[in-house]
Amino acid sequence: MTITNKVKNYIGIDIGGTTVKGIITNYNGDILYEDHIATGIAMDGDVLSNRIVELINNLIMANGGFKSSFSGVGIGCPGLIDSKRGMVIFAGNLGLKYYPLGGKISENLGMPVKITNDANAAALGEAKFGAGKKYKDSILITLGTGVGGGIVINGKLFEGGNSAGTEIGHTVIVEDGESCTCGRKGCLEAYSSATALIRQTRRAMEENRNSLMWKTYNLDTVSGKTAFDYAKTDITAKIVIDNYIKHLACGIINLANIFRPQVVMLGGGVSNQKKNLTAPLQKILDKELFAGQTYAPVKVVTASLGNKAGALGAAALWL
Amino acid sequence: MTITNKVKNYIGIDIGGTTVKGIITNYNGDILYEDHIATGIAMDGDVLSNRIVELINNLIMANGGFKSSFSGVGIGCPGLIDSKRGMVIFAGNLGLKYYPLGGKISENLGMPVKITNDANAAALGEAKFGAGKKYKDSILITLGTGVGGGIVINGKLFEGGNSAGTEIGHTVIVEDGESCTCGRKGCLEAYSSATALIRQTRRAMEENRNSLMWKTYNLDTVSGKTAFDYAKTDITAKIVIDNYIKHLACGIINLANIFRPQVVMLGGGVSNQKKNLTAPLQKILDKELFAGQTYAPVKVVTASLGNKAGALGAAALWL
Repeated sequence: MTITNKVKNYIGIDIGGTTVKGIITNYNGDILYEDHIATGIAMDGDVLSNRIVELINNLIMANGGFKSSFSGVGIGCPGLIDSKRGMVIFAGNLGLKYYPLGGKISENLGMPVKITNDANAAALGEAKFGAGKKYKDSILITLGTGVGGGIVINGKLFEGGNSAGTEIGHTVIVEDGESCTCGRKGCLEAYSSATALIRQTRRAMEENRNSLMWKTYNLDTVSGKTAFDYAKTDITAKIVIDNYIKHLACGIINLANIFRPQVVMLGGGVSNQKKNLTAPLQKILDKELFAGQTYAPVKVVTASLGNKAGALGAAALWL
Repeated sequence: MTITNKVKNYIGIDIGGTTVKGIITNYNGDILYEDHIATGIAMDGDVLSNRIVELINNLIMANGGFKSSFSGVGIGCPGLIDSKRGMVIFAGNLGLKYYPLGGKISENLGMPVKITNDANAAALGEAKFGAGKKYKDSILITLGTGVGGGIVINGKLFEGGNSAGTEIGHTVIVEDGESCTCGRKGCLEAYSSATALIRQTRRAMEENRNSLMWKTYNLDTVSGKTAFDYAKTDITAKIVIDNYIKHLACGIINLANIFRPQVVMLGGGVSNQKKNLTAPLQKILDKELFAGQTYAPVKVVTASLGNKAGALGAAALWL
């Protein structure tokens, strides 16, 4: 008797700056086991891959010990990844450059390994098991320290040529605008990340010392939540949020006009605002989407898998 | 004996505002026969489809009269096209709305028909037979009355969800910038079309009445060529061109960061400038492309098929 894919389980690994998460999931995206390890900053590639192999072996043991009950291992890794060759081209936070992470893990483990960028993995996770599961075409935009995300076309992860694309955050919406970490000016990331929102909130407070925010909140503890919290009672905060949403809508509509997905999903810290965020975005999208919403409508929703999206999506590389 | 695809020929139809071009091509993109008909403005859908059937029958007769020697008919049509159902959702210039053009032609002709947006067809033509034929992933940007284009991923035409995407021209690069025909402000089209270049040239002339352009050229006959012609001798013209190239580079890099194609091809009237256009664009791209040009480089070239790209790409829908 051969075990069909349907009864096989999947291993998903999500490499972060400080921890590596590992999960076992079934084809429904139910998490059966999970574990994690700590990663040191700029850990040597071989040390990192050995520790990940250990993590995977622990997960396999927890699931009964049989490697044959898995289709394979999927990995989401930050940085520029050559998914075809399993190579980390560059991952600044991990200190890796042209390191064959996929191959090393596969060799040491004796199992096939697929690897993609961590934001791509999260997009696939949300598309398969989360807020995008009803749709064929979806885009995930994560609003965190930076603006990341990924694109799923007809149920399949789209990584760009040589798996080096989908740098959603690094598309300019305001020529000669705010400086971006990528070296350009006016990128979506420079306006729509949580970092940008905090900067915009602080700037507005300093420039409006009569505002409720300035009078009742500490500049040093401003977060991506602050302006949202004050938006109903403080016009300064409202202007910050209105502008933030305007910039983000601009980026979303640009992507929608190119990819025309059925759904755009928002993840990352700022997406905790749920309807406060999606309702006004949807309104602008409805007004400005190319040729309108009648044919091929586009919805804006928040992502639903939280910090599990990456590991689930990595596992879904085998679906 | 069955005739293999390799020895079959292909029929490509390119519907324009004033004429419909028809060609027969082989799998190399050599044009064996071509013909065209005139189209009236806002011609009735049935009249248009009957005339196209006539055009196709003439092409088939010229090729020996056997429908069986063709894989099928490909059509490029302006407007919003549902390629799956062969439906013209909306084509303002043709006066068509929810018209089953593909089905009508297929029925009357007794041959299978594929249909896509005309800009998509041109992109596929250039990708298969033109400036992109060495590459798997390419983007065509046409700089004409508007900014159109299409995207080929891994050798296949990408049309966006419900074949309603790839509206390259309708992505904002300057928030609150120049008004665009789509209703938004600051779209790539509003800065990089030939129309925009003419507007920018005229504006610069009027604002700089000491310029060589103002003194020696007639405002009414300004074309997309004027500022390029004067750029070496007139600082006003040079500034127009530098700004034009800056905006276009911004749009190209945005697309390159998302799709990471091996090549971006420029078509339309402005692309006649060849190296005057591509050399400075390449320079900016080399500097600003995400993570640089070392891994997954992107080239900017001019398209090579001219006004045959659309019909050839329509035929290539069957390749």
